[in-house]
Amino acid sequence: MRELTVDDIECLAIGAAVLGTGGGGDPYLGKLMAKQAILERGNVRLITTDELPDDKLVIPSAMMGAPAVLLEKLPNGGEPEKALQAIETYTGKKAFATISIEAGGINSTIPVYTAARLGLPLVDADGMGRAFPEIPMVTFSIGGVKASPMICCDEKGNMVILETVDNQWVETLSRTVTVAMGLSSMISCYVMDGKTVKKLAVKGTMSLAIEIGRRIVESNREKKSPIDAILSLTRGFRLFEGKVTDVQRDLTTGFVRGKALFSGIETYKGSSLILEFQNENLIALLDGEPAAMVPDLITALDRENGTPITTEHLKYGQRVVVIGMPCDPVWRTDEGIKQVGPRYFKYDMDYTPIEELAT
Amino acid sequence: MRELTVDDIECLAIGAAVLGTGGGGDPYLGKLMAKQAILERGNVRLITTDELPDDKLVIPSAMMGAPAVLLEKLPNGGEPEKALQAIETYTGKKAFATISIEAGGINSTIPVYTAARLGLPLVDADGMGRAFPEIPMVTFSIGGVKASPMICCDEKGNMVILETVDNQWVETLSRTVTVAMGLSSMISCYVMDGKTVKKLAVKGTMSLAIEIGRRIVESNREKKSPIDAILSLTRGFRLFEGKVTDVQRDLTTGFVRGKALFSGIETYKGSSLILEFQNENLIALLDGEPAAMVPDLITALDRENGTPITTEHLKYGQRVVVIGMPCDPVWRTDEGIKQVGPRYFKYDMDYTPIEELAT
Repeated sequence: MRELTVDDIECLAIGAAVLGTGGGGDPYLGKLMAKQAILERGNVRLITTDELPDDKLVIPSAMMGAPAVLLEKLPNGGEPEKALQAIETYTGKKAFATISIEAGGINSTIPVYTAARLGLPLVDADGMGRAFPEIPMVTFSIGGVKASPMICCDEKGNMVILETVDNQWVETLSRTVTVAMGLSSMISCYVMDGKTVKKLAVKGTMSLAIEIGRRIVESNREKKSPIDAILSLTRGFRLFEGKVTDVQRDLTTGFVRGKALFSGIETYKGSSLILEFQNENLIALLDGEPAAMVPDLITALDRENGTPITTEHLKYGQRVVVIGMPCDPVWRTDEGIKQVGPRYFKYDMDYTPIEELAT
Repeated sequence: MRELTVDDIECLAIGAAVLGTGGGGDPYLGKLMAKQAILERGNVRLITTDELPDDKLVIPSAMMGAPAVLLEKLPNGGEPEKALQAIETYTGKKAFATISIEAGGINSTIPVYTAARLGLPLVDADGMGRAFPEIPMVTFSIGGVKASPMICCDEKGNMVILETVDNQWVETLSRTVTVAMGLSSMISCYVMDGKTVKKLAVKGTMSLAIEIGRRIVESNREKKSPIDAILSLTRGFRLFEGKVTDVQRDLTTGFVRGKALFSGIETYKGSSLILEFQNENLIALLDGEPAAMVPDLITALDRENGTPITTEHLKYGQRVVVIGMPCDPVWRTDEGIKQVGPRYFKYDMDYTPIEELAT
């Protein structure tokens, strides 16, 4: 057990954006919410999965939809805890702790907010080890946990409870509800006992994200390379250095789909890189050949200070370093590749691990 | 109290289509379901609102969406009772009886089905005295009853529970859920006590629909005019006799929107009539001038046998009589007109009662 302080949240938000692989949302608003809640209610206890009793209930807390709309459609602040408590009421069981579904992006800080508000410990783990765009894309789902009952709450006071036949129907129905609620909602789903969390969660991701954030901040202070620090923590690879020459985005489907084109400045390998994304970065093509692909992590970092750049913030002229990082082993199983591999995202190629592509 | 028999259901389905004003759905499938349930479980007790204890709970049962899809996407049969029972579980209260939300169309027979399956009495009343396309368009809503908690169940086994800040949000969220479920769902909403039902429901509509149906059948058997019989039961007016010369429909918005053009055969008044509809017939224009408008009832009947023709069954060459019938007085109040008057449906005109227009 350690305590999460306001300072930790600052680092968590930066590190979570690295694990967010371009998506998962700008953690800015979630960071403000989590910091405010800690200032008001005190530090949050971050417990390891080992500290979790097998028979106690863990109820995740998350935001669903397009994080960008949160900047104009502010949460009222009550939704995340309302969603979690609605699960408690609906199932008749009390939460022992909460957990992040998605360590990357805004969903790293929302559970901290909920934990602080409800006085619950937060488990140092998540269901992705990164960010993914859809509800079934979590290790819990791969392990057979039902996403439902699921709760969606909006800032107006509306609440929807879903009970579905499978996790894909949770995705379909909660997505349409979230769009109708104005493209964002606060959710709770994947209710699990401690034993299941121990078995299925990606462990240590909260403290990893904090550590990544802290090393970026410290490296900059000490005039060292923040990118080297990130690569060492994540066992990652430098894929490309270059500048953004074009960005295309399409938001019509409820996701941010598009691609960014980079041309080399100090050529690392090849002379151009294309990054294709659906909320998250899916594939990096170096001179037309795959350099990294889902489910491995691909993140664009500011070349000067190592700050992660989310897909919505990519713009012409930015100098970036694109890095690739190996994903959690569960995503490399047959079931994992089926759920989140390149073919799921309509790429006609087999998954090749970044370690093979980069060497 | 009277008992509803299989024979009554046959008449109910016909009469409900007259009150359905072109919409409310073809009652065919609901009729089969209700008859089957009565054959299996016995007759349904139809009780008057006077027989309803003030403090007992009434939980409505209905179908939402596009009734036309039910002909291909058959209910599994368990959804209507599952929706009602889910409200019981969610509120922790037992239903004393069920009730129709909408006497017109398929929602006249679905509650009979649910009543038979659950052994509940059915209240001889409804929330419209006709059919309307949207959830808040019921007398219960005008009287301040909350539509939520609302349950939507689909034939696959998915269930959604809605808790909203107002009845318009129930409409928005349940509509989007129903579309995602494949354009139809079985629902329960507007939970009320007996006292509220007595105060707000349109009374006697089930027995009125049965009586209309019975008189159509009998008139045909006795070679009398079924149309005269309908007009006498509903205090209605004959607006036009003619044949269908054109029908336009657009289903893209989740409703059936469109219009039908009729030209006179034995001209009653004027030489052409246009019927505009959104699921239900909204306005009849006789040589360009309003002859009847929402919330009054407008129904097209087969000129030979008085069978009501729903908007989806209107087709070129049909010989029809178009009739208009006065709506329940609650729809003529300021609040009623605001909710379902011509301006709500984007017509730039004030509501004029059919009695004034027809004389």
